Amino acid sequence: MNDIIFSTASDIRDMKVRGAGRIARAGALALAAYAEAYTVRDLEQFRSDIRKASDTLLDSRPTAVSLWNGVHATVRGLKDAESFEAAREAVIADGRRFAEESEKAVQRIARIGSKRIKSGDTLMTHCNSSAAIGVIAEAVRQGKDIKVYATESRPWRQGILTVNDLSKAGVDVTLIIDSAVRTVMSRVDRVFVGADTITSSGSLINKIGTSQVAMAARECRAEFNVCSETYKFSPKTMFGDTVTIEERNIDEVVRPGEIPEGVKVFNPVFDTTPARYIDNIITELGIMSPGAVYGVMVRQLGDSIFNLE
Amino acid sequence: MNDIIFSTASDIRDMKVRGAGRIARAGALALAAYAEAYTVRDLEQFRSDIRKASDTLLDSRPTAVSLWNGVHATVRGLKDAESFEAAREAVIADGRRFAEESEKAVQRIARIGSKRIKSGDTLMTHCNSSAAIGVIAEAVRQGKDIKVYATESRPWRQGILTVNDLSKAGVDVTLIIDSAVRTVMSRVDRVFVGADTITSSGSLINKIGTSQVAMAARECRAEFNVCSETYKFSPKTMFGDTVTIEERNIDEVVRPGEIPEGVKVFNPVFDTTPARYIDNIITELGIMSPGAVYGVMVRQLGDSIFNLE
Amino acid sequence: MNDIIFSTASDIRDMKVRGAGRIARAGALALAAYAEAYTVRDLEQFRSDIRKASDTLLDSRPTAVSLWNGVHATVRGLKDAESFEAAREAVIADGRRFAEESEKAVQRIARIGSKRIKSGDTLMTHCNSSAAIGVIAEAVRQGKDIKVYATESRPWRQGILTVNDLSKAGVDVTLIIDSAVRTVMSRVDRVFVGADTITSSGSLINKIGTSQVAMAARECRAEFNVCSETYKFSPKTMFGDTVTIEERNIDEVVRPGEIPEGVKVFNPVFDTTPARYIDNIITELGIMSPGAVYGVMVRQLGDSIFNLE
Amino acid sequence: MNDIIFSTASDIRDMKVRGAGRIARAGALALAAYAEAYTVRDLEQFRSDIRKASDTLLDSRPTAVSLWNGVHATVRGLKDAESFEAAREAVIADGRRFAEESEKAVQRIARIGSKRIKSGDTLMTHCNSSAAIGVIAEAVRQGKDIKVYATESRPWRQGILTVNDLSKAGVDVTLIIDSAVRTVMSRVDRVFVGADTITSSGSLINKIGTSQVAMAARECRAEFNVCSETYKFSPKTMFGDTVTIEERNIDEVVRPGEIPEGVKVFNPVFDTTPARYIDNIITELGIMSPGAVYGVMVRQLGDSIFNLE
Amino acid sequence: MNDIIFSTASDIRDMKVRGAGRIARAGALALAAYAEAYTVRDLEQFRSDIRKASDTLLDSRPTAVSLWNGVHATVRGLKDAESFEAAREAVIADGRRFAEESEKAVQRIARIGSKRIKSGDTLMTHCNSSAAIGVIAEAVRQGKDIKVYATESRPWRQGILTVNDLSKAGVDVTLIIDSAVRTVMSRVDRVFVGADTITSSGSLINKIGTSQVAMAARECRAEFNVCSETYKFSPKTMFGDTVTIEERNIDEVVRPGEIPEGVKVFNPVFDTTPARYIDNIITELGIMSPGAVYGVMVRQLGDSIFNLE
Amino acid sequence: MNDIIFSTASDIRDMKVRGAGRIARAGALALAAYAEAYTVRDLEQFRSDIRKASDTLLDSRPTAVSLWNGVHATVRGLKDAESFEAAREAVIADGRRFAEESEKAVQRIARIGSKRIKSGDTLMTHCNSSAAIGVIAEAVRQGKDIKVYATESRPWRQGILTVNDLSKAGVDVTLIIDSAVRTVMSRVDRVFVGADTITSSGSLINKIGTSQVAMAARECRAEFNVCSETYKFSPKTMFGDTVTIEERNIDEVVRPGEIPEGVKVFNPVFDTTPARYIDNIITELGIMSPGAVYGVMVRQLGDSIFNLE
Repeated sequence: MNDIIFSTASDIRDMKVRGAGRIARAGALALAAYAEAYTVRDLEQFRSDIRKASDTLLDSRPTAVSLWNGVHATVRGLKDAESFEAAREAVIADGRRFAEESEKAVQRIARIGSKRIKSGDTLMTHCNSSAAIGVIAEAVRQGKDIKVYATESRPWRQGILTVNDLSKAGVDVTLIIDSAVRTVMSRVDRVFVGADTITSSGSLINKIGTSQVAMAARECRAEFNVCSETYKFSPKTMFGDTVTIEERNIDEVVRPGEIPEGVKVFNPVFDTTPARYIDNIITELGIMSPGAVYGVMVRQLGDSIFNLE
Repeated sequence: MNDIIFSTASDIRDMKVRGAGRIARAGALALAAYAEAYTVRDLEQFRSDIRKASDTLLDSRPTAVSLWNGVHATVRGLKDAESFEAAREAVIADGRRFAEESEKAVQRIARIGSKRIKSGDTLMTHCNSSAAIGVIAEAVRQGKDIKVYATESRPWRQGILTVNDLSKAGVDVTLIIDSAVRTVMSRVDRVFVGADTITSSGSLINKIGTSQVAMAARECRAEFNVCSETYKFSPKTMFGDTVTIEERNIDEVVRPGEIPEGVKVFNPVFDTTPARYIDNIITELGIMSPGAVYGVMVRQLGDSIFNLE
Repeated sequence: MNDIIFSTASDIRDMKVRGAGRIARAGALALAAYAEAYTVRDLEQFRSDIRKASDTLLDSRPTAVSLWNGVHATVRGLKDAESFEAAREAVIADGRRFAEESEKAVQRIARIGSKRIKSGDTLMTHCNSSAAIGVIAEAVRQGKDIKVYATESRPWRQGILTVNDLSKAGVDVTLIIDSAVRTVMSRVDRVFVGADTITSSGSLINKIGTSQVAMAARECRAEFNVCSETYKFSPKTMFGDTVTIEERNIDEVVRPGEIPEGVKVFNPVFDTTPARYIDNIITELGIMSPGAVYGVMVRQLGDSIFNLE
Repeated sequence: MNDIIFSTASDIRDMKVRGAGRIARAGALALAAYAEAYTVRDLEQFRSDIRKASDTLLDSRPTAVSLWNGVHATVRGLKDAESFEAAREAVIADGRRFAEESEKAVQRIARIGSKRIKSGDTLMTHCNSSAAIGVIAEAVRQGKDIKVYATESRPWRQGILTVNDLSKAGVDVTLIIDSAVRTVMSRVDRVFVGADTITSSGSLINKIGTSQVAMAARECRAEFNVCSETYKFSPKTMFGDTVTIEERNIDEVVRPGEIPEGVKVFNPVFDTTPARYIDNIITELGIMSPGAVYGVMVRQLGDSIFNLE
Repeated sequence: MNDIIFSTASDIRDMKVRGAGRIARAGALALAAYAEAYTVRDLEQFRSDIRKASDTLLDSRPTAVSLWNGVHATVRGLKDAESFEAAREAVIADGRRFAEESEKAVQRIARIGSKRIKSGDTLMTHCNSSAAIGVIAEAVRQGKDIKVYATESRPWRQGILTVNDLSKAGVDVTLIIDSAVRTVMSRVDRVFVGADTITSSGSLINKIGTSQVAMAARECRAEFNVCSETYKFSPKTMFGDTVTIEERNIDEVVRPGEIPEGVKVFNPVFDTTPARYIDNIITELGIMSPGAVYGVMVRQLGDSIFNLE
Repeated sequence: MNDIIFSTASDIRDMKVRGAGRIARAGALALAAYAEAYTVRDLEQFRSDIRKASDTLLDSRPTAVSLWNGVHATVRGLKDAESFEAAREAVIADGRRFAEESEKAVQRIARIGSKRIKSGDTLMTHCNSSAAIGVIAEAVRQGKDIKVYATESRPWRQGILTVNDLSKAGVDVTLIIDSAVRTVMSRVDRVFVGADTITSSGSLINKIGTSQVAMAARECRAEFNVCSETYKFSPKTMFGDTVTIEERNIDEVVRPGEIPEGVKVFNPVFDTTPARYIDNIITELGIMSPGAVYGVMVRQLGDSIFNLE
């Protein structure tokens, strides 16, 4: 019966399954399938096996917030279930519901977020977020007349992807270098960025440069919106887990020989945008302020969340 | 006698003479030499000829603030002189003084600015300013133990020049991409940037991204210093001249075919940093606040400045 | 049986019933009465009929947030009810509870908010909010010695109503023009304003000028309080609905002939105050921060809220 | 049977039991013990007697937020219980759970908060908070290399206690006078302070000077953390109760004869830090933003909280 | 010989001469004329008589900053003059120069300020300032395509004059009520206001509401420009003179009977905009920052200014 | 002839002459007396001897900004003098004028500053500044009804001196601890502090805690005034000299044994208030903004100031 768990874990580990949403759904559905096929009608045994299966899945990509959320959303009813049947039903139902809802999350965010955009608006986006691009593309699809500034987003220059995506969607888009953000901001009405992770106190961890965009938006009173599926909320941050910000290799920034020996390159992938710079977090469960994130986490995982510490 | 004027103007036009300081000195010394060789002892004729010579020089590079300052500093005594001799002496003396002082300006700024740096400080610089680099290198030469973050400064990536310059001067320097400025700022004690132009109300026009660095420095209470020879102060801004910010070509930012037809690239060379973000302007005439710039302009050009309008 | 629904809808449409609270209660009680008189003991039929009745009511004033809340609070138990009886009971009970609680809301807000006022305080209010006036009048009734600045609130000059209301309540009140807000703010301890609508991320939509009062309060560290029944929270904003801000006629601002042909008048009724300017939202469910609004919405409407999108 | 109530109330009144946590646990456990020993199997009688017992306990220290929370957490199930047995069980279980959880709260906060501290950090603390000291000491126990600035905290100079506590825990600690907070802040990464009370809109009432530390932290972008057990959240503030800030005697500040007759001394014990200055509230239920406090209050006390008004 | 002095003083007193500029020029030219006709060739007598004449003129409108400046600019050379002839010449020349320059000041400001406006800009102005209107009208005259928001400026509603003036000049102008300033500001690029008085530390005293416009402009990063002839700089504020802000009558704000007995109306004419909100002061001597005002005062009145204290 | 120089230098060194003003006057008058008694009518010899005398005086207290200013103000005419007589006259006149003006400076500041205070104002002062106390006492002497908060100013508790001084002057004064500044600030209209040193870019170096008072004043929009004789302006800061901030002994803060071995005490005497927090600098030459300081320095010392670098 463990086959589904092991194969899913190995697909995630080997990057056969990738992308925050797909990973999370794979984990949730694997647990649901495992529960469905489970035959030993013993509550304690079931609980123990589900926990082992969960650990196996989580070990396949320990830093993926979405996987963590998919697994925990699936097992949330386990503890309070009063019979094996109830427990199994809960795992099956919760796993499937998570998968279904997460499947629809990006589209829901696009529909919800697009309503905030008015014809005539000038927007800005940073890096290459499918949720943020979805919002913008949906607004254009509705016939709204908008302009978009997309940042180059050095060093990987995901802005090139973004202008390609937006151009395909028929958007009037202008590329700028990252240093031009503040100059351009005085013409911008709204900013839409994605999220890598959102913490329990409402801070945003996202592509390096995001916090700079937010600071410039505040100075100009441009609206700063984060587009994020709720499976990017990190309940572990409730208990002090800090999000480690990866530093990447020097050769993403300079070519060999371009700078002298001894000159260092500091190349962090993400930065942290304080909650006070964020106007709206647009999720598939609606638009909220950073102050609402903790409550949503508790609501989604139930009392069991407090056992995380 | 006009030979010196014409040849200087043509050297400036043809970029044989370049760099803000060198251009300005060439203009001032050409006028002084022309005055020295002038033989018609007629005050009015002299005034008229000097004005023509000035115009010839200014036409060789109309946007160079430093040339404008060199020429006007040289002719400032012309109007009130009461005899031909006095007028000629004034032009000769003022032209030479301007050249001498401007020659020493960068070194003076290095000596003055370096005193503000303490051993143990972490600094940041943006783009590739010889005045700012001079300040930092001088501090290191004095044996101070400092670290420097240098921004890449897309699109031309002058940061590569800067890390080479600083590395040669024995400075511990780390390169960052422009988007990492706010992330790194929490470790920075002081920022030193150069100036392209400073306006009469104390705003700074400098390499795109400078205003973003300044905003991040203010948020962290890092000291924001501008290193600028006073010949970069623009008296014409007193009378409403705005500094046109050049937009450069798309191919500085993207390679052909990298982005779809129809996607624009907005690529401004400079941005404007409001006076309220600037703590110190470090000049060869000492350290001042943005509020002092107007008074220095009036002091340097005298009453004749008011005829500019 | 639809009589009660149709007559209520028509009373609302014809403005026979008006005021945010009265409209909401009328809608909730009409649905409760309709449910009480309902005789077909078929759950699905009941659900379908209640939904039709709800739509009829909502169509009578589509922009009234309070009506929307009254109707939705009344039907919130419909979906999960497992029998016709349970469903009917739920509608009856929820409709009546909504009506009762909303009836008491303004008084509760007055009692709660008045406790924040200290004898000796100077207050400010803007426009003519019965909740805000209730708070102030209650504080005076308790014998507190306070002074109040009331803004004129052009163009309708509701400030004239406010100073009449407050004067009747025995309050020491001074009228100011809207441009004097910042001047006066340095003497003000607390501001109390009402709400037209509060969004899911805690922004306030209220009479034009409110955001200016909030900005001036922040500059002076004066406390900024919003007095709002929770039926002014707009769950539809969770899903991206933006509050359309009505522009009113030119003749509210100028008399005919007073300005030349071609001169426009921009005359919006409301403005938006960002959540970051709000210290307290005082509701009948207690005092909360803007960050708590989303959670209250979810708590009030239950899971069914997520079907709104 | 009332013995346990009366003796506990008298121990609290006579300061035999003291400290926010100990008082709260004593109250909760006294009610649980009283319920356990209760023999009249009458629900109404039981409810009435428990309420009297609660009042007796609350009267023993009316200003203690923690006692209030302990008592209300214990009786929260009373109202909805449908039988005497269920009511008694609820009181016993809720009282014990409150006591157990509050017992562990400071340690949980230490574990959670310590994770936010990185080796190499410089911290600041104000006054003498066992929760804040616990966080710092735990980080040092984990082998992190940190430096701490502790304020003197005039007039009682609890900073002397703090530096003794931290020194005992092996922390590298430096004492500063309260006026040196802003000077030192530019070297500080994170601030940890305790809480006397937290209001429903997320404001912090704590030792005088705390709000000044918070303001200086914001100016420098230093992280401002409040360490607070949730029994310091004050649900009564939801309904407008303001926290009275005690003014203490002149002789805490000056010695007799040191100042002339007629000179006053204003000596408040606490001040209020607005929610907007707080980055994280670290509780035993995890890290949250000030916007989450209202929701936690409602979750902890259930619907009965709305009867408080 | 005193005829010219007495008649000028009486014309000013009787409002036959009015407007800041006209009054100032009348005073300066009256003193010049008096000096020209003066025949007693005694330096001390001349000084004494000029001082008496000055006092007579100043007494005719003690609160007019411009008159004060006109008179003091005219007599500034009196003290250091070494002969009667020199003294008389100085008074004649200085009086005439003041008059000539002040005559041209508004036009110069229009030319200078208009250069800051770009085609496509949206502007805002408050109240009815001829200097600010001159700047805007000149920009339109140059063919620039701009839009202007003009505030109503209660209670006198000078905005009606402004929209008439601007409409006549062919400007696309929209009237707004004073409460709509912050709402509209997000579309505004630059604000131009006039000045009643500018103090030695660069604060602006101007029509009530100006400081609110400035605060809203800062929040949005809109440029805030003050258009002011330098004769509105008040050297007396160097020595602590505060500008008394007139409170006007209740009937400017309300009609009789409109508000109850006992309700007060606070109706100040001006407010004070702190220097930190001002980006540029546009004068006939060029554009400067608030920090430059003190130096200009000293330069204009010379050492004699220090005798004012 | 050197007697006067040596005895003055030794009196300054031995603290027989002390206080910023007295030291400066002693130095200036000693040089004037030396010049008066000088008999060798040789310009070069005189210049050389005066420079030696200046150095002797400056060596007696190298850190006293006021002595530096007194000496340099006295010798400022030396360089451009064209004869021995002119040079001697310049030294005598400039030395005496400096002494006379500095003598009157504190009184002038009191008169000027007191005019800014209105009856009914609440003020705050920090530490024990005779200039600030002079301003407040003068306002009371004029019959104005004011209240003053004076900070304790740990560790030396100069606030005790201040409340004694103010009480003697009949002022209604309340002492607070340094941590209560922000709490009290919401009742304060204006702050008056003294200066140890003011830099060329307008920053203030003053007693530790001053920058905290300034920050709290800004948050509340209370006016922040610095009372400073211009001989506290430090021209050496124009050329990068930083003001060394003395750290004082641990036993000013703690008693022996009060804290464990190894606990450090950081006890700086001064802090730096950035120019952007300062509204007015009140000097004997009038009220100015921080932006005007550089120009005043240049005006006072003339061109010779640029030889300082």
